[in-house]
Amino acid sequence: MRALIIGRWQPFHNGHLSIIKEISNEVDEIIIGIGSAQKSHSLDNPFTAGERIMMIIKSLKKYNFPYYVIPIKDIEFNAVWVSYVEALTPPFDIVYSGNALVKELFEEKGYEVRKPKLYNRTEYSGTEIRKRIINNEDWKHLIPNGVINVIDEIDGENRIKRLNMKDYDIIE
Amino acid sequence: MRALIIGRWQPFHNGHLSIIKEISNEVDEIIIGIGSAQKSHSLDNPFTAGERIMMIIKSLKKYNFPYYVIPIKDIEFNAVWVSYVEALTPPFDIVYSGNALVKELFEEKGYEVRKPKLYNRTEYSGTEIRKRIINNEDWKHLIPNGVINVIDEIDGENRIKRLNMKDYDIIE
Amino acid sequence: MRALIIGRWQPFHNGHLSIIKEISNEVDEIIIGIGSAQKSHSLDNPFTAGERIMMIIKSLKKYNFPYYVIPIKDIEFNAVWVSYVEALTPPFDIVYSGNALVKELFEEKGYEVRKPKLYNRTEYSGTEIRKRIINNEDWKHLIPNGVINVIDEIDGENRIKRLNMKDYDIIE
Amino acid sequence: MRALIIGRWQPFHNGHLSIIKEISNEVDEIIIGIGSAQKSHSLDNPFTAGERIMMIIKSLKKYNFPYYVIPIKDIEFNAVWVSYVEALTPPFDIVYSGNALVKELFEEKGYEVRKPKLYNRTEYSGTEIRKRIINNEDWKHLIPNGVINVIDEIDGENRIKRLNMKDYDIIE
Amino acid sequence: MRALIIGRWQPFHNGHLSIIKEISNEVDEIIIGIGSAQKSHSLDNPFTAGERIMMIIKSLKKYNFPYYVIPIKDIEFNAVWVSYVEALTPPFDIVYSGNALVKELFEEKGYEVRKPKLYNRTEYSGTEIRKRIINNEDWKHLIPNGVINVIDEIDGENRIKRLNMKDYDIIE
Amino acid sequence: MRALIIGRWQPFHNGHLSIIKEISNEVDEIIIGIGSAQKSHSLDNPFTAGERIMMIIKSLKKYNFPYYVIPIKDIEFNAVWVSYVEALTPPFDIVYSGNALVKELFEEKGYEVRKPKLYNRTEYSGTEIRKRIINNEDWKHLIPNGVINVIDEIDGENRIKRLNMKDYDIIE
Repeated sequence: MRALIIGRWQPFHNGHLSIIKEISNEVDEIIIGIGSAQKSHSLDNPFTAGERIMMIIKSLKKYNFPYYVIPIKDIEFNAVWVSYVEALTPPFDIVYSGNALVKELFEEKGYEVRKPKLYNRTEYSGTEIRKRIINNEDWKHLIPNGVINVIDEIDGENRIKRLNMKDYDIIE
Repeated sequence: MRALIIGRWQPFHNGHLSIIKEISNEVDEIIIGIGSAQKSHSLDNPFTAGERIMMIIKSLKKYNFPYYVIPIKDIEFNAVWVSYVEALTPPFDIVYSGNALVKELFEEKGYEVRKPKLYNRTEYSGTEIRKRIINNEDWKHLIPNGVINVIDEIDGENRIKRLNMKDYDIIE
Repeated sequence: MRALIIGRWQPFHNGHLSIIKEISNEVDEIIIGIGSAQKSHSLDNPFTAGERIMMIIKSLKKYNFPYYVIPIKDIEFNAVWVSYVEALTPPFDIVYSGNALVKELFEEKGYEVRKPKLYNRTEYSGTEIRKRIINNEDWKHLIPNGVINVIDEIDGENRIKRLNMKDYDIIE
Repeated sequence: MRALIIGRWQPFHNGHLSIIKEISNEVDEIIIGIGSAQKSHSLDNPFTAGERIMMIIKSLKKYNFPYYVIPIKDIEFNAVWVSYVEALTPPFDIVYSGNALVKELFEEKGYEVRKPKLYNRTEYSGTEIRKRIINNEDWKHLIPNGVINVIDEIDGENRIKRLNMKDYDIIE
Repeated sequence: MRALIIGRWQPFHNGHLSIIKEISNEVDEIIIGIGSAQKSHSLDNPFTAGERIMMIIKSLKKYNFPYYVIPIKDIEFNAVWVSYVEALTPPFDIVYSGNALVKELFEEKGYEVRKPKLYNRTEYSGTEIRKRIINNEDWKHLIPNGVINVIDEIDGENRIKRLNMKDYDIIE
Repeated sequence: MRALIIGRWQPFHNGHLSIIKEISNEVDEIIIGIGSAQKSHSLDNPFTAGERIMMIIKSLKKYNFPYYVIPIKDIEFNAVWVSYVEALTPPFDIVYSGNALVKELFEEKGYEVRKPKLYNRTEYSGTEIRKRIINNEDWKHLIPNGVINVIDEIDGENRIKRLNMKDYDIIE
């Protein structure tokens, strides 16, 4: 049995990791979709698809369950989106999502949609981690070591801080 | 003489029907464009283009005036949009619209733009009908029977209610 | 029971008409897809989607069976194409097609695909009719009167002849 | 040495002109990108790419420095955007921008990004000029004569006023 | 009076230059469209839009007539193409083209289409010049000095030769 | 050191596997790009991106080198393509390719491009394997067991045979 879970993983954190590990106990193989794959270099979506793939693979390499990591860009066409996801992924039976639209779209196509179990949502949150990076607060304990290494390799901490700078002198 | 009217028809209701009937007295043929054809499965745009086409054709079948129903997706390029509409439709002379942008775009290309007569705008409104469906208030008297049948066939009432559910546990 | 048939209808001719009439005896409603909707002004695809819609509706107006005419552009993504068609059309059960790719794509999604019965394929052929127009041979007996009127309204005969002219002096 | 500056130039005004003139003293050739080239006919972006190109070329024709004016549409894919700009422009060394995202994207690719010097930002502002046109306040002293001529040729003043009209009777 | 001429200019050569100069005697301003702007790095289309813009501007700088150089990508939608060109260019009255499709599309929209006068078509031809570069034959006398400089700046001669190399060991 | 190799893998075969294994001895991590990711259901490209990802991951799971498998669709814009690949992948230093265009595009951006070593190109070829499937000749010894399982799971052998059927009765 294969399951699909799609997130933006901006960045991949310990809450994400524990969801994935829990799902790995319930299914044979996990397909991890990188949502909004075309987005990067904004405060909400600082990392490219390639960088997010690297984060996930580095974080999962010590685990033994089989998985796929696949970038999926937004297509702005809800009625076609499930088919678009199917074209890019191995066949799957179950979808993990807590999003009402994703649930509706997959259930209309006959998929079972399950609710992922989330822990410590206050701290294990992409928004919270990006905020801490901007404010120079502690954030490294919230993400796997593999992700820290990737953020270091691409100088991601400074990218987020620079993107947060006021447009000091925009041409209007 | 052929006229064009473009709406989103989410859903097609009795106010829409009376506009179309009134226009049918003024022109020989009516082209009914389904605007934002790529949109569906959101609270503002719950129905697909195919579903909306079916609603309109079922509602108009007892009338004898000639008409066309044509889906038109958003192209996000205003200066080209009139030409895009022209490519998908039979030639037309008049446009019915109360929207300032649509009026400007067609008038710049030399079309006559007329103002449609609207009745009872408080109740005959897509927003109002979608709100009533969510709140379990009466709504079926506001739309043609043909549309009720389509919404039943596709279980549209529940789709809107499910889309309205809180994201109970989103992955962030 | 609703059936789908997709063609390019360049132009809609008597062979097409007899297929549609025959299908109307087998199903309740027919969805007529205008394939390659974005194509026009070439020798193989001289007419726009709007012009082809008009040809079909003019040709069918004396018949009483219910039908839909819907433009469908090429999306160059086979695995998603059936879902794209579904988004633009009312729900359907059966597909009429003699094309191996179309048959495969719809059958993989669980649709029944039936073979349309074609008559007099030598003359009832878009290619043949376009060739006759270029060569000033008789062609009007091969298409419905409604189509002749449309081709006259848009000066289609001369469009095809002009498109056939040699690039007399191209800039290279 | 060639420099790139990208703006929306809605419309091109005296503040823009003085920036360009100042840059012309620092580099050999200037590439002037027309950002959001696909946008027009909205209150924030009233003019087409073609109209904006004309405004700039008319305004610069009495100066002797070499420049290029190139329309660049939004591609909604930040990580690819610099490469997209490079494909449409002559090679360049320096980018003038006061926008944090543009600065980040070009600096990550190794470009030097300089801050343009802006004068009298209260009046020399596209937003201010569009507001004055709507309110029938003086605005012609804020833009070059060449731009006034273009706005006259395309009846741009009335376009903006018409786009500002309330949707007097929208179909909903 | 403004005229439009669209070519691929792969590369811009002396035949092109003499056409442009001749047109400059007939109209007030010339809009030079860079067709297939998205194409580059192939044997038929070796140069990017940016490189071709640079070739043209360098070649024309010693002449005094007013002109615009505007990249125009292929949109694969003939019925919309004229409108797309209009959105990117200043308004124009006349089109110079020897291509049957371009002629048809602009004439259907009411433009006057004129035939450009071509000289020495055997040698003044993009195909011929690209062939000579590959075969190490003389080609520099066929193009303006400005173009030679651009091809040198971007090492274009070797790009064409490398693109001509056999796929020595393709993965199939 | 990370390397990129892009192929269409239609299907992934033993020749591909031996290239990947050889590269794994030369670099730390391999990024395997699925080229033409949007293509499927044709004789040249029978398998979807999702199916090809599954083939590769099943074939490599017994090896211990780190790798990424990433779908990359065609964008028909050569000058931007390298940047598009970079956005979807982890950073890399080396590209393996025997294709002249790929070599040129990556070398212009400063990458080292190496030639992959191919074995037994007559039999280890996607074209050859697809031909054998059509002709009911032996083909399973040419591909890894993991790929055989995938082709079985999706009934790929019959898909190819059905796609090879003559259009028995196409509507023209």
